[in-house]
Amino acid sequence: MKIAILGGTGHIGMGIALRIAMLGNEVIVGSRELEKANIKAREYRNILEQRGLEGDIIGMENGEAAREADISIFTIPYKYAYSTAESLRNFLRDKIVISPIVPMVKKGGFFLYDPPVEGSAAEKLASILTESKIVSALQTIPAKKFADLDAKFEWDVPVCSNDEDAKRITMKLIDRMEKLRALDAGPLVVSRLIESITPLLLNLMLQNKIKSLGVKFL
Amino acid sequence: MKIAILGGTGHIGMGIALRIAMLGNEVIVGSRELEKANIKAREYRNILEQRGLEGDIIGMENGEAAREADISIFTIPYKYAYSTAESLRNFLRDKIVISPIVPMVKKGGFFLYDPPVEGSAAEKLASILTESKIVSALQTIPAKKFADLDAKFEWDVPVCSNDEDAKRITMKLIDRMEKLRALDAGPLVVSRLIESITPLLLNLMLQNKIKSLGVKFL
Repeated sequence: MKIAILGGTGHIGMGIALRIAMLGNEVIVGSRELEKANIKAREYRNILEQRGLEGDIIGMENGEAAREADISIFTIPYKYAYSTAESLRNFLRDKIVISPIVPMVKKGGFFLYDPPVEGSAAEKLASILTESKIVSALQTIPAKKFADLDAKFEWDVPVCSNDEDAKRITMKLIDRMEKLRALDAGPLVVSRLIESITPLLLNLMLQNKIKSLGVKFL
Repeated sequence: MKIAILGGTGHIGMGIALRIAMLGNEVIVGSRELEKANIKAREYRNILEQRGLEGDIIGMENGEAAREADISIFTIPYKYAYSTAESLRNFLRDKIVISPIVPMVKKGGFFLYDPPVEGSAAEKLASILTESKIVSALQTIPAKKFADLDAKFEWDVPVCSNDEDAKRITMKLIDRMEKLRALDAGPLVVSRLIESITPLLLNLMLQNKIKSLGVKFL
């Protein structure tokens, strides 16, 4: 499977790119700038090479990446996510699009969830990409730690979607990544509950002076 | 410390009553009906006695319980929580009131968070009990499993409040209960993020056929 990580040049994109490439998938790192995408793709390949691993990771401009891929992961900051979605609409038709987007505000030093009128970022994305299969997942993965291949963790990933096949494929992909467990959370309307966890994690990290926190359901 | 568990005759009240009594606290089980409160208090004492443990657990009508206690835990279903709060207002003045309340709706077979206009159940409680010290906690504890003293678990309890002292006291109480870890989540406004976890847990249980799920941040 060809998997594009749109806006995949940040920490969360890096972790996902490395770990998905390690599974033998073709990974396309997308960016607004081809140059940046290429630099990051090379950087990610080098990280895997230094570990004696091969990784099929290439860089592309976001539009090209979306067009080429079977699955696109939308790791784009929520401020630009919706306009980017509009511009990629045609390339993403009939394909799986995974939304890890979390709209947040900081008020009085604390993070709060700031959903759009659609109810959640994933539902807003679905309202724009009406012909794509939207899956909500990966919001609660601590980006920096996930990008560190030596990091120890064990996290759960709630996944929701209105498309059962797309959900199963996404869950399988997540389950194959080491130390992640995908859990079916139901239809896309549940995304607001998943997205809400991210600002809570940030507050808990802040208040308890913990560097990174993910979540486990047990 | 005298701790009242208002509406403490259900599973979540039972777990809290048993485990707080085991720590050596005086526990008052509150109910709308004194008779029911007394029956449950006796039942809880018997459970502890059968384990060779002593527990100072008595029953009272909710109003009496609130008046007697230093801390009240508001384990009342959210449909009755606010009207009960109105009626207990005077008894709870200047005292710590812990809110585990979660307003939920079930739509299309799935649970969603249904907060009041105040933003969360805890904030609505605070808007009624203006002279009490409201602490939000214990929403994500699976009630039945928590009531089973043989159950194995390890859960985190995010705690938030606008009153730092009340928050510290509540966190200490929770930390003293075996296998629970209290985590400071910030001010009361964060309660909406904590309360949101409960419907997500219910959906995850439902979709993945798991009997009970709590949460751990790691």
